[in-house]
Amino acid sequence: MENFTYYNPTALHFGKGVLDKMPGIISKYGKKLLLVYGKGSIKSNGYYDKLMQQLEEAGFQVVEYGGIKSNPLVEDVDAAAALGRSENVDVILAVGGGSVIDSAKIISITIPVQHSAWDFYTYRAKPKSAVPLIAVLTLAATGTEMNPFAVLQNEKTGRKDGYSSELIFPKHSFLDPELTYSVPASYTAYGIADLIAHCLENYFGKGECTLSDRFIFSIINDAIEWGPRLVKNLHGYEERAAIMYDATMALNLLTANGKSGGDWGVHSLGHILSLLFDVPHGASLSIIFPAWMKVFRDQAGDRIAFLGKNTFGTNGVQETIEAFETFFRGIGTPTRLSDVNINSDKHEAILAQWIRNKAEGSCYKPTHDDYRQLLSNME
Amino acid sequence: MENFTYYNPTALHFGKGVLDKMPGIISKYGKKLLLVYGKGSIKSNGYYDKLMQQLEEAGFQVVEYGGIKSNPLVEDVDAAAALGRSENVDVILAVGGGSVIDSAKIISITIPVQHSAWDFYTYRAKPKSAVPLIAVLTLAATGTEMNPFAVLQNEKTGRKDGYSSELIFPKHSFLDPELTYSVPASYTAYGIADLIAHCLENYFGKGECTLSDRFIFSIINDAIEWGPRLVKNLHGYEERAAIMYDATMALNLLTANGKSGGDWGVHSLGHILSLLFDVPHGASLSIIFPAWMKVFRDQAGDRIAFLGKNTFGTNGVQETIEAFETFFRGIGTPTRLSDVNINSDKHEAILAQWIRNKAEGSCYKPTHDDYRQLLSNME
Repeated sequence: MENFTYYNPTALHFGKGVLDKMPGIISKYGKKLLLVYGKGSIKSNGYYDKLMQQLEEAGFQVVEYGGIKSNPLVEDVDAAAALGRSENVDVILAVGGGSVIDSAKIISITIPVQHSAWDFYTYRAKPKSAVPLIAVLTLAATGTEMNPFAVLQNEKTGRKDGYSSELIFPKHSFLDPELTYSVPASYTAYGIADLIAHCLENYFGKGECTLSDRFIFSIINDAIEWGPRLVKNLHGYEERAAIMYDATMALNLLTANGKSGGDWGVHSLGHILSLLFDVPHGASLSIIFPAWMKVFRDQAGDRIAFLGKNTFGTNGVQETIEAFETFFRGIGTPTRLSDVNINSDKHEAILAQWIRNKAEGSCYKPTHDDYRQLLSNME
Repeated sequence: MENFTYYNPTALHFGKGVLDKMPGIISKYGKKLLLVYGKGSIKSNGYYDKLMQQLEEAGFQVVEYGGIKSNPLVEDVDAAAALGRSENVDVILAVGGGSVIDSAKIISITIPVQHSAWDFYTYRAKPKSAVPLIAVLTLAATGTEMNPFAVLQNEKTGRKDGYSSELIFPKHSFLDPELTYSVPASYTAYGIADLIAHCLENYFGKGECTLSDRFIFSIINDAIEWGPRLVKNLHGYEERAAIMYDATMALNLLTANGKSGGDWGVHSLGHILSLLFDVPHGASLSIIFPAWMKVFRDQAGDRIAFLGKNTFGTNGVQETIEAFETFFRGIGTPTRLSDVNINSDKHEAILAQWIRNKAEGSCYKPTHDDYRQLLSNME
């Protein structure tokens, strides 16, 4: 087992009706809040009106920044931070999925400074403080609600990168599975792919920890049990609750303990697909992971077979890869580039960007030939 | 899945040499510390001298309270709190196993008040603040290093009870598996029994959460894999590390998520054995758990069989109970009262105290006949 530090101070409030206690908790941090949300799904599903009424009744003064995109942009973060700074807000309330909460995390450390949030991503600046952040999760997928990570995209520099700081843990996160009922089957499936991919990235990382492996198998097996039921029953409370909890546990640091870090190569490759073609994050991962396992079937053969044995009960590398592909397809998340309308004429553009961004993991480093093989496997 | 709140702000520093960074972390809280430890094992194994030198070099002023007993007494807690209060310490450093760290937790909330710590246990008083607590774990067993629980014994009232408060989470816990090398085989085995019992208490609790069940099986299976190797190789780093990490995860709230609480009946029964006959905590649990499963084999039959299937790969209730007994015996922790020299002439005393203290769980309530059957099963 490798040395590790495990620290996760986010308070997770999970279940039916937990939002009722939210105003009491927010008010500990102040009465003026910056509400951050996305492109309007909270308006179309009716939650926005309910929330505004709840906040008004509790006497909060609300400054709004809506319109965060699903592959969130640093330009939005900078604009929201400028607003929060000029309005001198006490606390941030982020309502949404990964993109909204990731953005709000970086807004929280950008409000106290006078430069672009991107300076944190390029390590030109280091955050020293953060405006307290409360999150309400509306989409089970990224695990951002209980971790110190945030991914942003910079259209100018053509990069999509992750950032990590202990300052950006949400203070409290509220997870009511009923709030995810309106997520369509497609995005529900991408979320399941995302959470499984998080488990796999840590699984294929450096170092050995048998308990972390077991926790990883636990989460994947839970998703295998509940995922297919959920996509058939989008208003099933138990189904929504199980997948929502799986997604949180899949990337809240737990499964990285005793190892010296995950691989994260597939995420690095997937970010390029999102950047170039706006492919939903989870969809990019379900396309790439099986293809990636095929490329690294020799180097990672034992690990792939052990994974399959402990999840799908498969025997050997080939069966394992096929089981993941079949599972992903079964829940409705793509496994080929053509499924998201990216045809072979786009391969060179993807390849060039992978090479330019050095898209690789900490353990598994694709060569140029591997990149080509990967594209061919995704065809 | 039941509603839950999951909050655990303890920073866990795990691995070889992690104690080197301890002084830097303690000094954030102040320079005057109350050092709490047990009956001298840290002196006999040489760690005490090393620690004192480390603290002295870092410029700490150290006030000492040693001699905490293995079934810790409220009298010691009150005396240590009086010392910490009069010396106006900034921070508490607890070095030891469950009894020392549990005591230090209650000392941390008793220093700021003027009454006995027992008033918290009887709910006559509620803690409002705590002196920051740093823990160094020297025995893998109770999970106290990363939870808000503390068990104390009151000799006057004849009770041994648990207490919980968010104020008593250690701020930081340092877990170096090498520090547990000197724990003898017996206490190593009791620790393994304790961690498995913690998993079982949550497993037999109210509510259903498939992921929590899976995490529970993960921890038990990890202990089944590493426990027998460890008792044969007490200086094995990987063995010590695995069991130490298992013990922390077995009772750091994780496995209770999505349920409305564990049963805790076996703990309640076991505390009486410790109280009356000073039976080591873990030993009391390995004696009682199989006997308890036999008593509740009808009520909890499906759960017992499901547990066995997912841990020892057994088929049915009887095989499962036998597998646990065989495992416990194999690592050297007792499964019968006679193993700890408690003969049948003591049964009436145990029975009377169980009845007096209403020793039962939140789900499974033994009748007087059940108590008698339990004693008979433990013979």
